[in-house]
Amino acid sequence: MIEGVLFSIPCITALCYQEKEGFMYLGVGGFCIIIGLLMRRKKPKNDVFYLKEGCVTTSLSWIFLSFFGCIPFVLTGEIPFFINALFETVSGFTTTGASILSDVESLSHCSIMWRSFTHWIGGMGVLVFLLAIVPMSGGSHINLMRAESPGPSVGKLVPKVKQTAQILYLIYFALTFMLFILLLFGGMSVFEALNTSVATAGTGGFGIKNDSLISYSPYIQWVVTIFMLLFGVNFNAYYLIIFRQFSKAFKMEEVRYYFIIIGTSILIIFLNILHMFSSWADALRHSAFQVATIITTCGFSTCDFDLWPETSKTILVLLMFVGACAGSTGGGMKVSRFVIMFKTVMKELRGYIHPKSIQKINMDEKPIPHEVVRSVNVYLITFIVVFVSSVFLISFDGNDLTTNFTAIAATINNIGPGLSKVGPTCNFGFFSPLSKIVMIIDMLAGRLELFPLLILFHPSIWRDGK
Amino acid sequence: MIEGVLFSIPCITALCYQEKEGFMYLGVGGFCIIIGLLMRRKKPKNDVFYLKEGCVTTSLSWIFLSFFGCIPFVLTGEIPFFINALFETVSGFTTTGASILSDVESLSHCSIMWRSFTHWIGGMGVLVFLLAIVPMSGGSHINLMRAESPGPSVGKLVPKVKQTAQILYLIYFALTFMLFILLLFGGMSVFEALNTSVATAGTGGFGIKNDSLISYSPYIQWVVTIFMLLFGVNFNAYYLIIFRQFSKAFKMEEVRYYFIIIGTSILIIFLNILHMFSSWADALRHSAFQVATIITTCGFSTCDFDLWPETSKTILVLLMFVGACAGSTGGGMKVSRFVIMFKTVMKELRGYIHPKSIQKINMDEKPIPHEVVRSVNVYLITFIVVFVSSVFLISFDGNDLTTNFTAIAATINNIGPGLSKVGPTCNFGFFSPLSKIVMIIDMLAGRLELFPLLILFHPSIWRDGK
Repeated sequence: MIEGVLFSIPCITALCYQEKEGFMYLGVGGFCIIIGLLMRRKKPKNDVFYLKEGCVTTSLSWIFLSFFGCIPFVLTGEIPFFINALFETVSGFTTTGASILSDVESLSHCSIMWRSFTHWIGGMGVLVFLLAIVPMSGGSHINLMRAESPGPSVGKLVPKVKQTAQILYLIYFALTFMLFILLLFGGMSVFEALNTSVATAGTGGFGIKNDSLISYSPYIQWVVTIFMLLFGVNFNAYYLIIFRQFSKAFKMEEVRYYFIIIGTSILIIFLNILHMFSSWADALRHSAFQVATIITTCGFSTCDFDLWPETSKTILVLLMFVGACAGSTGGGMKVSRFVIMFKTVMKELRGYIHPKSIQKINMDEKPIPHEVVRSVNVYLITFIVVFVSSVFLISFDGNDLTTNFTAIAATINNIGPGLSKVGPTCNFGFFSPLSKIVMIIDMLAGRLELFPLLILFHPSIWRDGK
Repeated sequence: MIEGVLFSIPCITALCYQEKEGFMYLGVGGFCIIIGLLMRRKKPKNDVFYLKEGCVTTSLSWIFLSFFGCIPFVLTGEIPFFINALFETVSGFTTTGASILSDVESLSHCSIMWRSFTHWIGGMGVLVFLLAIVPMSGGSHINLMRAESPGPSVGKLVPKVKQTAQILYLIYFALTFMLFILLLFGGMSVFEALNTSVATAGTGGFGIKNDSLISYSPYIQWVVTIFMLLFGVNFNAYYLIIFRQFSKAFKMEEVRYYFIIIGTSILIIFLNILHMFSSWADALRHSAFQVATIITTCGFSTCDFDLWPETSKTILVLLMFVGACAGSTGGGMKVSRFVIMFKTVMKELRGYIHPKSIQKINMDEKPIPHEVVRSVNVYLITFIVVFVSSVFLISFDGNDLTTNFTAIAATINNIGPGLSKVGPTCNFGFFSPLSKIVMIIDMLAGRLELFPLLILFHPSIWRDGK
């Protein structure tokens, strides 16, 4: 088991370099590097990664990463209480964007920058971690990603994991840079534009102002809306577009459903809130922004949707669970899982009517392997178990059901704001330490797609390997 | 397709006889019989029931039954609005117990009796319908029941469906009668005791007083608590007990888990509400009663649990979904489904750690067929789809999220009271007709375990048969 842990340290070191390069947190950065180098000298005995080791490594990396990442907040005294600092950092790395700070503007510039930058590391990190680890592992339980793009998948065209990761980095970086430039045109300062663009890229949602994006111009809000949606698309689609396989990119079922869901939701909410705004342009902008921010699990806001009519709120809560496409930087349960589930139900209904015919579930015109369907079902059940236990645990704080329900929905799906007491104008500071720990675990579980984190709780992992 | 419909009419007739015998609703009863006889003369061409025909028959029977059942309410003018009368009747037949009446006591005696009696028909009806139809059908998609008792199952010991149904009737009747006698000892009048015992037997929950069971003595409340729990047990357990196979009865995993869940919930709620009552006996009684009423989806209440602390409310909401044992008169998703799901998740986790070992899921010391596990998963997904669309549809009424969420939870799981505006002291009268129709469909869907009702919406059912 130890090999896995040892092997994970260089990853942490590498990420901590980022931290050091970016900002002035030299001390902590240096400390991480020293530990990393020391650990690295202990060469792992066994280089082969099995599924088990992969999962443990990923989970532990994320936990160490968050632990080291929150030290600066504590040391600078800006978030003195350790649990709060950890919550904030985990919220950053998992691109949740839920904050315990009531006054963001009082933070120092470098802390704000580090806070936003955790999103960018986290957003990219997941892609790298998932794509880098999954293809190595023996089992095929979590590589939904590969199964989702049965066309010329990234993994097939570029056989090396490192190259795959590089291409994804490149797309990620290029999109972030485009957004940065467009935001500069909108009249933002370099600091504001940099923060906003990295937070959008990771679909995180830490704002640099207390009111998130409410005070910015409509132009900036539209730009952010569009880029949030772009970062929520399966990155394989961009890969296909770069290599001029337009027809294949447009045929990706997941991406199509993604835009259908978004379009429908915007339309319904637009009609539902039309009477609340002076012009239809305002209503359209706000509905589009809020749908984008929730479905991509970004978590910015341009207005307090807690005051909207119940129908709009219900749609937003539903979108929280849907989430973005698989293979994007967004969280949630992923569009492709819902598409597969919906097809399973339709298949079952057809099975009732024609019991003898054999049904296959297709996606992108290729049948989905039985294994994938099963893993989607198991994922759903596990999700519900984790969700329900979390709601139960935080209910001891005595807040109302809507608060508890949406707080957990917002953290496990890595969104940020919920409804009622955790609405877009509020923060998570009032929860008890126990509840915060529950939500920290939920954020990590949601980000790592449940299983890698859950097996840490299984006793046999901690016994001697094998 | 028509054959199925024709064949279902005698069942309706038979049930309408009950109605006629029991009470003075002669006109409607007679009308039903005449129609039934007329329909019966048209002999079905094909006597063989496939899964498709079985499902359609069941669903249509329930719809016709509810339709005819609500006519008396309209004719007597006690519930003048048709949708309300239909809601009340469906709520009765599906043993939900959600009422649109704010003043129950103003009803005539025969209407109250009919209202309570629908529970008894509905509670028994489900057992009969499920057990009578499932063994005939070709596919094994919904016969979870059989899979759950892999010991000497009822179906095996008594090969004829009719006999199976008779034995179940007998157990059902005997338990109801015992409860009736015990309630008489508690000082209830014959009318009150009869109403309460049939409503408890069907785990329905229509009370005969406006305050449900609040004004009765602790003795009666305890008796009802115990009998609610008894009616929530898998009836196969009673069968085994009657035939003196005690060890097998006590080994039934579902029943064991059922009582473990109940015990734990009562304990937590007891500790949580202790400070609200003057004596621990009161707190224990109220917590036990409310846990029993919710988990068996009965729906009586002895106090307004909407005022309880959030933890207790959360537990109760969770119990709403758990429901009683399969093969009982209770609703909900059934304990066995949860046990299977939980075991699936544990199996998946073990699969991560030991990818090469082949895992089997056992229940009652026998492996569960893969088909059953799959159907449980599909059931869960379908449940979520129906649940979510219903919450969305009734959100147009503009009530708060807790109301909408628990109203749908209470109707689809056939419980009765929810929280907030549909709490135990309130009623469902304020919803719009559209919402009521949604909830009527949910109640039926929940009672018929989703699929039989859902395929009615599938277009190919309405084309020519085959």
